[in-house]
Amino acid sequence: MKKVGIALLGLGVVGSGTYRILESKKEKIMRDYGVDLEVRHVLEKDTTKAVALGIDLSKVSCDINNVINDDKIEVVAEFFGGIEPARTFLLAALRAGKSIVTSNKELFSKHWPELEAAAEETGAGIYFEASCGGGVPIIRALHESCQGNDILEIKGIVNGTTNYILSNMSEHGSDYEDTLKEAQRLGYAEANPSADVDGFDSTYKLSILSSLAFNKRIPYTSIYREGISKVTKEDIKFGKEFGFTVKLLAISKNVDGKIEAHVYPAFIPDDHPLAKVSGAFNGIYVVGDNVGELMFYGKGAGDLPTGSAIVSDIVYAATRYEHRRYPFILEEAAQNFNNDFASEYYIRLTVKDETGVLSTITGIFGKAGISIDSMVQKAGVNGKATIAFITQKTTELTFKKALAELEKASCIHQVDSMIRVEK
Amino acid sequence: MKKVGIALLGLGVVGSGTYRILESKKEKIMRDYGVDLEVRHVLEKDTTKAVALGIDLSKVSCDINNVINDDKIEVVAEFFGGIEPARTFLLAALRAGKSIVTSNKELFSKHWPELEAAAEETGAGIYFEASCGGGVPIIRALHESCQGNDILEIKGIVNGTTNYILSNMSEHGSDYEDTLKEAQRLGYAEANPSADVDGFDSTYKLSILSSLAFNKRIPYTSIYREGISKVTKEDIKFGKEFGFTVKLLAISKNVDGKIEAHVYPAFIPDDHPLAKVSGAFNGIYVVGDNVGELMFYGKGAGDLPTGSAIVSDIVYAATRYEHRRYPFILEEAAQNFNNDFASEYYIRLTVKDETGVLSTITGIFGKAGISIDSMVQKAGVNGKATIAFITQKTTELTFKKALAELEKASCIHQVDSMIRVEK
Repeated sequence: MKKVGIALLGLGVVGSGTYRILESKKEKIMRDYGVDLEVRHVLEKDTTKAVALGIDLSKVSCDINNVINDDKIEVVAEFFGGIEPARTFLLAALRAGKSIVTSNKELFSKHWPELEAAAEETGAGIYFEASCGGGVPIIRALHESCQGNDILEIKGIVNGTTNYILSNMSEHGSDYEDTLKEAQRLGYAEANPSADVDGFDSTYKLSILSSLAFNKRIPYTSIYREGISKVTKEDIKFGKEFGFTVKLLAISKNVDGKIEAHVYPAFIPDDHPLAKVSGAFNGIYVVGDNVGELMFYGKGAGDLPTGSAIVSDIVYAATRYEHRRYPFILEEAAQNFNNDFASEYYIRLTVKDETGVLSTITGIFGKAGISIDSMVQKAGVNGKATIAFITQKTTELTFKKALAELEKASCIHQVDSMIRVEK
Repeated sequence: MKKVGIALLGLGVVGSGTYRILESKKEKIMRDYGVDLEVRHVLEKDTTKAVALGIDLSKVSCDINNVINDDKIEVVAEFFGGIEPARTFLLAALRAGKSIVTSNKELFSKHWPELEAAAEETGAGIYFEASCGGGVPIIRALHESCQGNDILEIKGIVNGTTNYILSNMSEHGSDYEDTLKEAQRLGYAEANPSADVDGFDSTYKLSILSSLAFNKRIPYTSIYREGISKVTKEDIKFGKEFGFTVKLLAISKNVDGKIEAHVYPAFIPDDHPLAKVSGAFNGIYVVGDNVGELMFYGKGAGDLPTGSAIVSDIVYAATRYEHRRYPFILEEAAQNFNNDFASEYYIRLTVKDETGVLSTITGIFGKAGISIDSMVQKAGVNGKATIAFITQKTTELTFKKALAELEKASCIHQVDSMIRVEK
């Protein structure tokens, strides 16, 4: 039987989960996939983690040369996260002809071209199923199952932390700040939550997914980004009245050859397949021009779910004769991005509780050529009222111009919030 | 660039869709997958179909030898459906070293061992992504993305016709017979609908999915089967009161090493990921011991969705150096099936509208050790009433014994229906 040596760089949550799966499924993988995977070296400075997993300490060190110089190690799986030393170590592994497996979306979205170039030199493979959607096999689906399609659209809930927060706000009617604190207490959010709540993590993942889907490099820096910190419980409540659920969406579309890519909180109809993707789950909705709508759903994080995706890549890498190449990633894509994308919009306003307000609003929007689809008004106190409405489809620039006009109208105290609507 | 010859056996709905995708995506597949796919021969007696697609008639015949004897044809895709001549032609192709691609679930579930044996002789590949779930890439997901898992459970909505009928009955409160006729009129159901509505089609698909998931042969004849013809609008209405949606489910489970496999209409909770899989869509819910819950969703049929899966297999087959083998399918699995499986049950009864009926029912079930979870009673006419209730989990044999007791009770006119509940 083919024997393939593996190195694990780091024994954090996912690294440990991966080791446990490799051990518990060793026989199964031998039987079903005809390959004997042997963990030959682990890089980890905290040896107690290795001891806890029962790893012989002779296999544990902090020296990457113990990996690079072992000819029997064919696959290197990285769990450090962040850029360095992951980047340097993985480049060294690729240059030594070893395939790499990683869940590191930040590294991958920022340095994929460099990794690809190194892989092409030696023919080694790069595998990153675990980088997007945790245990959800979305990478494989995009490049091994949609060959006969041009992908028209990806809409993903790809960050479990923000989905947990928004689902909880929605379910319990609670504030953003309180829910974030609860999520931090339970370990669902980091002490510094910015990478998640400000949408950076989703942007990295959308960059990877879109590059694969459109077969061109979509840099994360080209992706428009808004986080979830401005979503209020009031908006969630109004959204429910309109039949909408709020989600942090990573969206990319190919509209007549122009790419649109954005990460922002958006309302989706309650009957959209993504609306029921709650809590720490991820869901990725894909539209291909031939296959139509697809959706992939599963756990977006965690030691064993993400470890499952890592092990899948390891088995895949260990049993391939020729690795898949991504030459398109080496080319700087023509900047054919459309920032004046079209959407529907939800707006909530505090207005003077007097006649003529509605006609002022519809007048401003009508002048801009924007129709209003539906509207809810709630009487307030102190002569104020709240109006929430949904526009029909318009473009970002047109909408923002109308919004500026609205802010100037004397009958309007303030524009409280704006959330895009994705149908 | 690698050039690979393709043969298409039949130009029905999916065959024509496949041809159109191969033509329209020829350049894309060359660019992204490095292979030039050329349709070299088509078997089809109705030449008008070939003409409509713009296929040169010199490439069209009714003689399989034109496929078998062409050394440049490496992949043969079959669209005849049914057993013969598909079986004979595909065996001949495999024995000539050509890989086969098929969406033919009946053939594949009945003759997989024979096809596998022929493929092993020559090293050719067998590809059947399109056989289950139409455009949904569930086959690839099970064998290329879950390597580090033992699959614990599959629950699939894998038949679009029955899902269309049940979704419509649920939405419009209509009868089974009327809805079936409407589905036939619209072309969603066959003139003879038995293969779909009696669950045979789902059984074929579940046999394939379960064999892959459990790496052992699960013959379709071992799968317990009930169709949807007994589902009434009354039951659907009661189901809604309990928070349930009815679906024809293809279920297999690995419970402590024993396999359970059944196809039957079942109630699932409204918040289950499968509950929103409506109309002609398919959804397959998979639980792995490491990855946890996964769900795959998309169009279960149609020229282009199923054609997309066929083209995916063709590209896959054309770019592999070594094809995946399924040796386990050659072994007759030990008959380790559990037919006394556990479930919860919904029962609807017509009873005498008198005191003591409830205590009779709870008494009979209590004696059998079955608890009742919730109950709804509706007053009727002529001294009759309707009672619907849900049991807690019990086993099939225990339940059926209690049901027989119920039928004997003098205060019960009749047991109107029983539907299993899957949570």
